Amino acid sequence: MDTNDFQQIKDLGFSSLIEKFKNYTGEKREEIEQGIGDDASLYKEKEGNLTAASSEIFLEGIHFDVTYTPLHHLGYKLVTAAVSDVYAMNSKPVQILVSLAIPNKYSVQMIEQLYKGIDRACTDYQIQLSGGDTTASHQILAISVTVLGTSPKENIILRNGAHHEDVICVTGDLGSAIAGLRILMREKKEWQQQESEQFQPELEPYEFVVQRQLVPKARNDFADVLSKTDVKPSSLIDLTQGLIADLKEIAKSSGLGAEIYSPAVPIALETRNVADEMKEDVDKYAFYGGEDYEMLFTLREPQVEKLKADFEDFSVIGKMSNEYNELRINTGEDRTIQFDL
Amino acid sequence: MDTNDFQQIKDLGFSSLIEKFKNYTGEKREEIEQGIGDDASLYKEKEGNLTAASSEIFLEGIHFDVTYTPLHHLGYKLVTAAVSDVYAMNSKPVQILVSLAIPNKYSVQMIEQLYKGIDRACTDYQIQLSGGDTTASHQILAISVTVLGTSPKENIILRNGAHHEDVICVTGDLGSAIAGLRILMREKKEWQQQESEQFQPELEPYEFVVQRQLVPKARNDFADVLSKTDVKPSSLIDLTQGLIADLKEIAKSSGLGAEIYSPAVPIALETRNVADEMKEDVDKYAFYGGEDYEMLFTLREPQVEKLKADFEDFSVIGKMSNEYNELRINTGEDRTIQFDL
Repeated sequence: MDTNDFQQIKDLGFSSLIEKFKNYTGEKREEIEQGIGDDASLYKEKEGNLTAASSEIFLEGIHFDVTYTPLHHLGYKLVTAAVSDVYAMNSKPVQILVSLAIPNKYSVQMIEQLYKGIDRACTDYQIQLSGGDTTASHQILAISVTVLGTSPKENIILRNGAHHEDVICVTGDLGSAIAGLRILMREKKEWQQQESEQFQPELEPYEFVVQRQLVPKARNDFADVLSKTDVKPSSLIDLTQGLIADLKEIAKSSGLGAEIYSPAVPIALETRNVADEMKEDVDKYAFYGGEDYEMLFTLREPQVEKLKADFEDFSVIGKMSNEYNELRINTGEDRTIQFDL
Repeated sequence: MDTNDFQQIKDLGFSSLIEKFKNYTGEKREEIEQGIGDDASLYKEKEGNLTAASSEIFLEGIHFDVTYTPLHHLGYKLVTAAVSDVYAMNSKPVQILVSLAIPNKYSVQMIEQLYKGIDRACTDYQIQLSGGDTTASHQILAISVTVLGTSPKENIILRNGAHHEDVICVTGDLGSAIAGLRILMREKKEWQQQESEQFQPELEPYEFVVQRQLVPKARNDFADVLSKTDVKPSSLIDLTQGLIADLKEIAKSSGLGAEIYSPAVPIALETRNVADEMKEDVDKYAFYGGEDYEMLFTLREPQVEKLKADFEDFSVIGKMSNEYNELRINTGEDRTIQFDL
């Protein structure tokens, strides 16, 4: 992109904007009979399946910071956040609708970068961008994303199905997204203090955590595994708020208490290194960080080995219980931290 | 509402906010197997039907002004705007998802007013609030609304189906919503100039137009008529941007020109009175006003009388043509105004 290339959106018009980016719609899905271009999209649900729908809103300055977030990364991340909610029902995403409210400071070229990221993510998750809306905004970019997914009713996994003595499991590793954010915020601060255009942030040593913050991937691989095995988690949620907050959702809606054995919580070496460098507690990253988009689920204990046969990238981190009504963290040093549900 | 009653949302927490307002969900629809409370809602589509989906974003200061918009009216209007898109496909709305980004200046009680308006509209349109999200915002209230609707495939009416010599029709009357906005803006200005808390806006003489601006109704009655008659419009759109802009959408997507006979455009006496008082051209209100949420449609000429037998509240205002590729306004005084498509 030529940096002198700044076409104002008002010179083009909002309806031409949609027309201009009509090829950035990811994968063409045959179930979608009408995509962008009418009052609503039209979708043919598979017979007997349930349609999952979820919607979220993202604001500049609250949910993203464009000083360190390339717009194509932002586009990708918004789609990840959306589809992750559908995978967290053990459903499969089919389409998304994206609405943008765009202030004058954004050019047509910048919005194109955003759509390129959306398109790339839609292609990766094999879904179609089927609708949405573009409109003006005064100060900040505001984006809403709605995702629709599909699955047979019997596949659906809710938050409320955990049983007494089910083990608590999590895919991947936790805390890396917040570690990436800490690095980006530090570099932003240094950049602002230097007041120089020459400043080049040193991100390379932190590539793993920065990528996890900027372009996280939803766990579609876990959804694929579940569709091939006869192991079915009793409850499932995606980690967006952080382990403590999201496990509380499972515990509360299942009417149970939960205990996490903190030494078992998977944390990447790169994440530990960032916490050390920042002189911060890496467990806090893992417990409160959020935005990891890993899957948190509960399982009958005998099913753990069965799942391991098909899928290795998960850890057992604790157990549900009907003997207390709170969330406990067992630190492994004879110390238990307690949280109200 | 006691005006001293200002509970900060951060004292309650966003997840408790959703819990608090869980009864404001309109009508319980049996097709919805999972409403608010999990990662996504779950919906059972009728066999053979198509699911219509549409999403929009609304920002304080751009799409609404809370200085003269009571929050329960705003809630109602957002639902109207959403369902109108589904009626404009000749589909029937079933559920909406509402996401809110809320700044600190809004109290729990204010957000309750908003949900009361959403609930009232959902009850009127017989739909269920099935999901959404609440989050923080810095300055402005931002709201996204997604609507899902259903209909047999053969009922769907798109924008692109108009034929040469089809007549152009519109329900109700046009320009009243912008007339109401002009009054509200004048009263706001006077209120700001007076700098007095005693100022009482005089809205009573303008009740008709102010209501059309603040709490517009979607034309669900027209959708009901279409389901009972064998008249089927060849194209259909709802009037949100204004007659000229929305008719252009039909003309462009149908590959035709269009002519409006301007004396035939229905305008309420109350709307004319406001334009006279403002020394403005009432035709401009009707042509460019927007937000009327009336239905604009095209029909084979012989079907006009047939539709009139079941439904009287519409006017024939022009004709489609394949003889030119533009939009023409015939003023009835031997003068034609032309617009590029």
